[in-house]
Amino acid sequence: MKIVFLGSGNVATHLALAFKASGQQITQVWSRSKVNAAQLAAEVNASAIEDLSSLDRNADLYLVAVKDEAINDLVPALKGLKGVVAHTSGATALEVLEGLEKFGVFYPLQTFSKQKAVNLSNTPMCLEANSIATLDVLQAAAKLISSAQYMVNSEQRKVLHLAAVFACNFSNHLYHLGYSILEANGLDFELLKPLILETARKIEDATPFDVQTGPAIRGDQETMVKHLRLLDDRRDLQEIYKTLSESIKKTHL
Amino acid sequence: MKIVFLGSGNVATHLALAFKASGQQITQVWSRSKVNAAQLAAEVNASAIEDLSSLDRNADLYLVAVKDEAINDLVPALKGLKGVVAHTSGATALEVLEGLEKFGVFYPLQTFSKQKAVNLSNTPMCLEANSIATLDVLQAAAKLISSAQYMVNSEQRKVLHLAAVFACNFSNHLYHLGYSILEANGLDFELLKPLILETARKIEDATPFDVQTGPAIRGDQETMVKHLRLLDDRRDLQEIYKTLSESIKKTHL
Repeated sequence: MKIVFLGSGNVATHLALAFKASGQQITQVWSRSKVNAAQLAAEVNASAIEDLSSLDRNADLYLVAVKDEAINDLVPALKGLKGVVAHTSGATALEVLEGLEKFGVFYPLQTFSKQKAVNLSNTPMCLEANSIATLDVLQAAAKLISSAQYMVNSEQRKVLHLAAVFACNFSNHLYHLGYSILEANGLDFELLKPLILETARKIEDATPFDVQTGPAIRGDQETMVKHLRLLDDRRDLQEIYKTLSESIKKTHL
Repeated sequence: MKIVFLGSGNVATHLALAFKASGQQITQVWSRSKVNAAQLAAEVNASAIEDLSSLDRNADLYLVAVKDEAINDLVPALKGLKGVVAHTSGATALEVLEGLEKFGVFYPLQTFSKQKAVNLSNTPMCLEANSIATLDVLQAAAKLISSAQYMVNSEQRKVLHLAAVFACNFSNHLYHLGYSILEANGLDFELLKPLILETARKIEDATPFDVQTGPAIRGDQETMVKHLRLLDDRRDLQEIYKTLSESIKKTHL
């Protein structure tokens, strides 16, 4: 497959590296900033462009991995392509690419950091397209880099994004709150890391409902009162403690 | 080392198996229920007892892994032992064992399930004792099964437990809320698992503060309003969404 990347951020980088590793040819990397385009292009042996008029018009797949609000601006320059154009955004509807011939969504449900290699091989690739033939192309591309493909329409993708905010963005913030509680008491965050990792691993083969532990599910009022007292100078954490403990109790009535 | 276990639940089981695997001799397993004692005893080649009067009085270490409120009840039967007696509770002070000669706390900061093997080798063993000599014994024991030992006093252990409630109990509940959002929309929880695992892995070599992502930290009001609208029939989840988003915003001001 010949693939062009539009964008050179985290998502573009991780996808481009994975496609390159699977033996595909990345012909071009476009970015508004030539410096960024050049950096990724060098890593995957592609040419860097900053002018869309020099776009390679013979690629099989154009992956648009730019900021959500910038996707639509690229549509005019992508008109008339024979290849499939897909954006990689979890929060953007398929229709943003309306007006193109073959278009779709190629959304890897994963969190990417610039520095850290991520194993894409089991990352769910959430696909949507404007026709079955286009979907086939996206599915074939997804199979090259991951064993997990899902058909997810734009409505479902919104729900997925919302669920990910709860399960991942909010969890990470709770890691931070744990960190800040330890730090304020001169304790090392290293202490919590194995527990955090095991908590995430546990739900590989059990539902989170079935493995819930802690004072709230036990109805251990004494411990909860002690915990709230320890947080006397952190009203904000007391509120979070109460809100989530209530939610656990209601869930496990 | 000759070790006696008092208790036969998850913590006792995982510790006993690890000590056995490290070549120590588990001489006895006591439990109020002989059936439970017999089950664990069989796994680690020990004898099961239900009458404390037949306790082996020549062990080096007695690990008390019973329910928090039952620890103190065992103290009279443990008087006069030459070995070290340590409880394994995160939420119980050292003083609960007052009256014994050599006593301490041997608290593995980890979450244990009956069914699932847990790698104890990097689990923080949080140790406290009534004398330096006793602490030495606990430290030597901890080294047999884990590379991570920490001196943690009873005050610090309370704080640690509180931080673990935030980072682990509450995170697990947020996994469940993600699960319930997906389920209500006919989506498979499998979709979220790689993301959850990577979110936990990310903080191995970065602070959770530095890797926070999502609409709240971006100040993406539009997405947050959309998310709250999707939760119109779940007022409880709206409240959690608002509370945690506010907390993220305040943290990253």
